[in-house]
Amino acid sequence: MAAKVQDVILLFGDSITQGAWEPGLNALGQRLSHVYARRLDVVNRGFSGYNTEWGLPVFEQCIAKREDKGAPRIQLLTIWFGANDACIHPSPQHIPLERFKDNIRKMVQMVKSPDSEYYSPWTRVILLTPPPVNTHQRLADLQSRNPPLALDRLFDTTKLYAQVVQEIGEQEGVAVVDVWTLLWDASGRDEASLNQYLIDGLHLNGVGYEVVYNQLMETIRARHPEVYYENLRPIFPWWADINWDNPNESLYVQKVDSN
Amino acid sequence: MAAKVQDVILLFGDSITQGAWEPGLNALGQRLSHVYARRLDVVNRGFSGYNTEWGLPVFEQCIAKREDKGAPRIQLLTIWFGANDACIHPSPQHIPLERFKDNIRKMVQMVKSPDSEYYSPWTRVILLTPPPVNTHQRLADLQSRNPPLALDRLFDTTKLYAQVVQEIGEQEGVAVVDVWTLLWDASGRDEASLNQYLIDGLHLNGVGYEVVYNQLMETIRARHPEVYYENLRPIFPWWADINWDNPNESLYVQKVDSN
Repeated sequence: MAAKVQDVILLFGDSITQGAWEPGLNALGQRLSHVYARRLDVVNRGFSGYNTEWGLPVFEQCIAKREDKGAPRIQLLTIWFGANDACIHPSPQHIPLERFKDNIRKMVQMVKSPDSEYYSPWTRVILLTPPPVNTHQRLADLQSRNPPLALDRLFDTTKLYAQVVQEIGEQEGVAVVDVWTLLWDASGRDEASLNQYLIDGLHLNGVGYEVVYNQLMETIRARHPEVYYENLRPIFPWWADINWDNPNESLYVQKVDSN
Repeated sequence: MAAKVQDVILLFGDSITQGAWEPGLNALGQRLSHVYARRLDVVNRGFSGYNTEWGLPVFEQCIAKREDKGAPRIQLLTIWFGANDACIHPSPQHIPLERFKDNIRKMVQMVKSPDSEYYSPWTRVILLTPPPVNTHQRLADLQSRNPPLALDRLFDTTKLYAQVVQEIGEQEGVAVVDVWTLLWDASGRDEASLNQYLIDGLHLNGVGYEVVYNQLMETIRARHPEVYYENLRPIFPWWADINWDNPNESLYVQKVDSN
């Protein structure tokens, strides 16, 4: 079995999280896995197509209860939803705005509230807002399918879901990477120009993920510098730091303690 | 804390394993992370510069003892060393061939032997041989440094270390991905042509990792089809399979049991 040697970064969200190791994109999860190697394990808990209503019971199962002393600590938790919740009613993915807000807040409070059985005082939460929808690109993608599908998301609706995430961040005192505004500003506030950052009007391309990665790293550095990767020592020593005459002296390390 | 929801694939080795999520390469670890998303977590236990002598005590700490019922199961374990063990004596990385063989065998037996306190009957071990060294490319890289360095690895020596891994595979009855022979054959058995697969005469480039990934997947499919990614169900359902009228019914799943 895999022993607990490293704490983790847990990425929780929908397909934009699940797909963050996709070949050819140099996407968010892959980049984090690379720079955090030997420091923190990066865990993919992205669920394509999920909204927050389906995400909540899954979230509950993905984080350990406070009495589970054997589980690795989540040093950093990203929560990234909204792209599916904002689907047009009556899509089964649609979740009303207020309910979405409640769900995201529940996730945050589940780890942040001292009253929660999942309370995790060392877990730094970072919320991400959904990317803006390029309805031109999205419609073209949906119309190209067999049979052709109608537009399922609106630009202005997703914007509201993004704003709500921003509000929760302020109310709960947790950092937010405002992907919506980042990409909107980067595209010169022109919907059609969002195709520079999106594959299909909804999912990020490599450039989009790069923008998000850079902002996430900047947020970690500014808000939680103690877990910025350069500030974490590797669990096992760099090879040049091993005591070559008596290697076991430097290679038996204290295992991470999550008590 | 991160709850145990998925079993794992553990990749154990040196820099060629550690670097397998590097941006721009579409490398082995990243590709496995992508295709195994929602099925198995892929854990990076690569240690740049390490030989098997330093790897052994670390390995012991990365795998859990059989009585540790809380740890996730390692469904698949890759062990990939030799590139550093084969360094020219008296490099601190050099490990004599027989000792290298003992060390790799010890790692295999640690999980495969019923007498071992790390015995893990469900762990499928796959050994990988070190890639062939392109001494032209390697020397050019070392000479370009400041100060310039002498050649540290020989083509024929690494070949011997690769052969030994192949032998252990046969003796212990575990699958081997013979990276050495794969890349040697692919380059037309011409040392200089290995630059199609290597960055610096030692580490794999994107094409090299692709060849290894394809062969590893073929090995999993042929030898251990039950853990080939397409044959594993996701832990949590695809969104179209959720019972939309009563989502919790399908979303509370049995957690992985490692007893």
